[in-house]
Amino acid sequence: MALTNPTTTVPSKITIYDQENFQGKRMEFTAFCKNIMECGMDNIRSLKVENGAWVGYEHSSFGGQQFVLERGDYPRWDSWSGSNAYHVERMMSFRPICCAVSNHKDSKITVFEKENFMGRQWEMCDDYPSLQAMGWCNNEIGSTQVQSGAWVCYQFPGYRGHQYIMECDRQGGEYKNFREWGPHAQTNQVQSIRRIQH
Amino acid sequence: MALTNPTTTVPSKITIYDQENFQGKRMEFTAFCKNIMECGMDNIRSLKVENGAWVGYEHSSFGGQQFVLERGDYPRWDSWSGSNAYHVERMMSFRPICCAVSNHKDSKITVFEKENFMGRQWEMCDDYPSLQAMGWCNNEIGSTQVQSGAWVCYQFPGYRGHQYIMECDRQGGEYKNFREWGPHAQTNQVQSIRRIQH
Repeated sequence: MALTNPTTTVPSKITIYDQENFQGKRMEFTAFCKNIMECGMDNIRSLKVENGAWVGYEHSSFGGQQFVLERGDYPRWDSWSGSNAYHVERMMSFRPICCAVSNHKDSKITVFEKENFMGRQWEMCDDYPSLQAMGWCNNEIGSTQVQSGAWVCYQFPGYRGHQYIMECDRQGGEYKNFREWGPHAQTNQVQSIRRIQH
Repeated sequence: MALTNPTTTVPSKITIYDQENFQGKRMEFTAFCKNIMECGMDNIRSLKVENGAWVGYEHSSFGGQQFVLERGDYPRWDSWSGSNAYHVERMMSFRPICCAVSNHKDSKITVFEKENFMGRQWEMCDDYPSLQAMGWCNNEIGSTQVQSGAWVCYQFPGYRGHQYIMECDRQGGEYKNFREWGPHAQTNQVQSIRRIQH
C-alpha cells in the first residue's frame, strides 16, 4: 500500500476535551488559543489533533514547558507531557506550527557546539534519536539555526525529557543559546532531535 | 561537518549506576543481564549507553515494560521510562539489540491492520511520529512483520507512551497480535513507529 499524506491542503485542526478519553466538554480550534480559560475551558484532559502539527504549552500565553502534538489521539495528559520528573498535568495554551513542512525531507537545521553559532557544527536533514551515536561530541548543544521546517530537540536520547520546539519562521530561525529555547530551558542538554511532521 | 557513526565495529557496552546522575556503585556490561540483583546491584538509578542499542525491562528475565536505550546519558529513571501514568522507576534486566542496523536505511517492517497479517498493510522503511498523519486509518495496528532491523512502536504519537520493541531476529520477526508484543501490552493501540539506531 502506498500511503499519501492527506493533510497537505487541509487547515490545522485540534479538538480538546475537559475530561480524559475524549469525554466532557469539547471545543474545536483551527488557530491558536492563548488561554483556554478565556475560551471557557478550565482544563484540557484529552485531545485529538485532526490536522497539522501543534505545540501545547504548560502556561497561558505560550509559556512554560512545550509539547509537540502531531496528528493522532491523546487520551490523557501523560500522552503528550514530556518529563516525568516534573509533572505537567495541564496545557493552558496552544498554537499550530505553521512552518512544519508536509514533505519533511525539506527540513534543515544546523546545530552548533557553542553559543552564538560557534564551534563544531552539523547540518541535519534527518531525525536523530541519539546525537552521540552519530558522533556528536557530548550531551549538549550550544546554539541552532533552523534553515527550513520545524524541529523538536529533546533533553534525553530516544525523544524523551524536556522538549524544545524550533521553527524557521520564529526569531529568524536563530536560537543563540539555551535561554532562547524557551523559559523552561535550564541547561543546554540535548541528546535527540527530529523533524516535526505536518 | 560530516559525522560518521563511530560505533560500527565496537561491541555494545552499557554502564549502570545505583544512584542518580551517574553516582554510587557502577558496573559495566557488554552482554545481557537477566537480573541485576544477581549481579550485586539492587537498583539502577542512572545509566550510560556507551555503544550499541539496548532494551531495558521493568522486571527480571526480560519481563514487564520495555524501554529502548540508545547511545547517550540517562541521568534518572524518567529519562528512559515510557509511560507517566504507570510509573516504572526501576529496570531489573537488559540486553543488547543485536539486529539494530548501523545503516538504518536498511530497516524494514510491514504493519497490518488486523491480527495474523490480515487487512490493509503498509511497508515502512522510515520513522513515523504519526501514523495517522501518513494516512493510516486509525490509532491501532493488528500485527507486524519485521523484515530487517529493529523497530520500536509507541502507544501515542510523537514516540510517547508504552513501547513495544520488535526485531527481525526474534520470533522470526513475526508479531501476530498485541499479546506477542510483550506481557505489558494491553491494547493494540500504536500511533508512532521508528527504527532503532545502532
